[in-house]
Amino acid sequence: MEKKNNITPFETDIAKWYSDLVLQSDLISYAPVKGTMFFKPYGFKVWTLIKEQMTTEFIKHNVEEVQFPTLIPESLLQKEKNHVEGFAPELYTVTRTGNKELNENLIIRPTSETLFGEYFREELNSYKQLPMNLNQWVSVMRLENNTRPFLRNSEFLWQEGHTIHATKQEAKDFSYEIIKLYENFAKDALRLPVQMGMKSKNERFAGAEMTFTIETILKDGQALQSGTSHYLRDNFTKAFNVKVLGSDNKMYNPFGTSWGVSTRLIGALIMTHSDNSGLVLPSKVAPYQVVISTVLANKDPMILVKAQELADKLGKDYRVHLDSTDKGPGFKARNWEVKGVPLRIEIGPRDIENNTAVMTYRTSSEKVSLDMEAINIEFIKKALEQNDSEIYSNATKIVENKIIEANSLEEVSKIIQDGNIAKAYWTEDDTTEKQLKDDTGATLRLLNVVATEQASINTSESTQFVALIGRSY
Amino acid sequence: MEKKNNITPFETDIAKWYSDLVLQSDLISYAPVKGTMFFKPYGFKVWTLIKEQMTTEFIKHNVEEVQFPTLIPESLLQKEKNHVEGFAPELYTVTRTGNKELNENLIIRPTSETLFGEYFREELNSYKQLPMNLNQWVSVMRLENNTRPFLRNSEFLWQEGHTIHATKQEAKDFSYEIIKLYENFAKDALRLPVQMGMKSKNERFAGAEMTFTIETILKDGQALQSGTSHYLRDNFTKAFNVKVLGSDNKMYNPFGTSWGVSTRLIGALIMTHSDNSGLVLPSKVAPYQVVISTVLANKDPMILVKAQELADKLGKDYRVHLDSTDKGPGFKARNWEVKGVPLRIEIGPRDIENNTAVMTYRTSSEKVSLDMEAINIEFIKKALEQNDSEIYSNATKIVENKIIEANSLEEVSKIIQDGNIAKAYWTEDDTTEKQLKDDTGATLRLLNVVATEQASINTSESTQFVALIGRSY
Repeated sequence: MEKKNNITPFETDIAKWYSDLVLQSDLISYAPVKGTMFFKPYGFKVWTLIKEQMTTEFIKHNVEEVQFPTLIPESLLQKEKNHVEGFAPELYTVTRTGNKELNENLIIRPTSETLFGEYFREELNSYKQLPMNLNQWVSVMRLENNTRPFLRNSEFLWQEGHTIHATKQEAKDFSYEIIKLYENFAKDALRLPVQMGMKSKNERFAGAEMTFTIETILKDGQALQSGTSHYLRDNFTKAFNVKVLGSDNKMYNPFGTSWGVSTRLIGALIMTHSDNSGLVLPSKVAPYQVVISTVLANKDPMILVKAQELADKLGKDYRVHLDSTDKGPGFKARNWEVKGVPLRIEIGPRDIENNTAVMTYRTSSEKVSLDMEAINIEFIKKALEQNDSEIYSNATKIVENKIIEANSLEEVSKIIQDGNIAKAYWTEDDTTEKQLKDDTGATLRLLNVVATEQASINTSESTQFVALIGRSY
Repeated sequence: MEKKNNITPFETDIAKWYSDLVLQSDLISYAPVKGTMFFKPYGFKVWTLIKEQMTTEFIKHNVEEVQFPTLIPESLLQKEKNHVEGFAPELYTVTRTGNKELNENLIIRPTSETLFGEYFREELNSYKQLPMNLNQWVSVMRLENNTRPFLRNSEFLWQEGHTIHATKQEAKDFSYEIIKLYENFAKDALRLPVQMGMKSKNERFAGAEMTFTIETILKDGQALQSGTSHYLRDNFTKAFNVKVLGSDNKMYNPFGTSWGVSTRLIGALIMTHSDNSGLVLPSKVAPYQVVISTVLANKDPMILVKAQELADKLGKDYRVHLDSTDKGPGFKARNWEVKGVPLRIEIGPRDIENNTAVMTYRTSSEKVSLDMEAINIEFIKKALEQNDSEIYSNATKIVENKIIEANSLEEVSKIIQDGNIAKAYWTEDDTTEKQLKDDTGATLRLLNVVATEQASINTSESTQFVALIGRSY
């Protein structure tokens, strides 16, 4: 397939812009089963970088890595009533092996609470074993009809953490620690100014007592749930008969959490930072932080020598790629621009004469000619920091413009219809939440407690809760 | 579940010994779907160490990491005739999502040649893009009726490499490079003296033109296929219509390889190195290379201080775990012994007086009292080398005793019935191969070319091929 190298402008058609960009930047291609993807080397490297850095954070919270099976017996999934009801329409069901019908259907995991329930039941017998903090990086499947790469897939890659604690408070605290971890990771590594808060009862995970969320506000005015952490109380430990001996010598059901982020984070990254020239990547998740390209290398053998020297020098501290192919300089520059490489350095015939190199910043497209000696570890560090801070401040501006305060339900509707996110004092209430959804397609994305109490816009009761309300993926 | 901490002796019941050991060393536990496992933190860490070190080797061969979907449309799997016939009875088949019957069944990947075929067809158009070397670390499913952890699972973790090359010779050479990589890895990191060779026509991978294998000869006299590398010629590129423009400006089907190792390597490791006290691990795949245990730490606060100091000192270069729990010294020693930790160091009240520590080697159970200062990076390096070389020489002795030369088909039968592996000059021939299998249950494990020609024991034709013949998992 020939690369087209032309991306539909964002302003013309945002959906087309997104899919052009995802394909042309070599992140993924479409696989034969609808809603599934081939993660190409470049796209899988972004995910691997997320995975490695996040795992380092998990270890600080004494989380251990495991891997559990793909299939769940149907009867096991049915043990927690709310849970199975939440997932029933989306389940990929194995009914046969070879030509033999199974006695019991097997479900491809939509999430693994039930398997972890079974595991904890077998492993745990005393509060002294707690907390038990486990995590796995796997794929899960949930049928989606309107699929979009990264944003809505029928199969996606994710991590799912599952923990058991001796007390309610410890479990609640842990679920909060994890959402803070997600928030910090999103802001620091992905440069996403995410919004963090609690889910309303209607928006909670099936089987959870409390759900924390981080939401990315996208430039199309929709909110993208980008990570959740659930306090499960003893709902799953009861359903799965997980019991431990307490310090008071009595058996009881301990308290659980579960939490996950998925390849959707890459969708959030693309939607937030990219432009009409392609991907824009923060340095911590860029497969290549610096690409050094030779220009007309056949004119002077020193071009490749100098390029290789520079690659070796910077390669000690950074992910550096040397592009010494004989393609034209325009083609090469365009290729690495679409892929969102933060810093591109070109070395051509004139640079050899002058002992210089030309560096282009992906964010501003600014080109600077630099003395070769000036391009050192410290210089690249500052240039990448500039890349990352520009990305973050641009993203913050978008979000600040998109979130608009509302003082009535009418104002909320207007804000939503204008493609924005409303922020308003809110009391949890099924009727108004449902009406809002019917009228505008919007839902409560999250709730936060604020210092000052005020009358809610939906029931007029006095409340300390402020909601973000918007359409979502 | 209380730990039993007693392993059925190997001599009494090898199957029971194996399953006791696998469970008590905390590698895995059984998951609800037959033939699937929960990889516990300790077991998953062994696999992660294998994965990381092998990926480092793959990179040297310019292999890039990808991730492809779990599900394959039934029609896609049927495109390569031999391939689908080889796997048909073992396929986990999704026929429904939610309550809706699918128009086309979806198969959980038993391997991903067909998906890679589809991918290569879309990506490739010129020989200039070749070689394209891809790999993924995923799980696959193939129904097994007689399941045993690691050795035979219905779901197992593995890596599958898939490459496309411009010429037949390049593809053949690459498949050979990879089997050499596997052989070296098995010998170096896993300390397994594996046998390497070619598969006979009847034992080849479904769809392959040539299959190379490494086989571990186990102490029960069975051979365990532990890694394979296939030269696929253009069988899959033809079936999937993968075409590139050649240097002669003509379109043609390029040439492929595929290759994989799985969690079966852990089964080979356990069966080969372990003893009646539990696991024995080579240092490169031991989750902890050194465990430092406090003994009666409540008697003297300096015990924990010294133990922590030592852990910090050694932790810079090795995977070190400090066990400062208040359990009895016997319990702690036993726990780390079962888990196969190469070096255990105990620090108790008398050691504080004498500035010593007591080190126990897992292989020999030898205990030595050492001056605290003597336990440094260099000393541990040598002790781990000793661990690894003892493991390897023990394993080599087993294999040497198990492989016995045969000069007739009768001798082969006798050798097999005695629980050994026969080595004999052999000519590929369906009739004698089938008869051998019917009579003894044995198959050709591999064929190798040797320098001297001799009459084969099965057809009396002169041959340079020597076969290893044995029962297998």
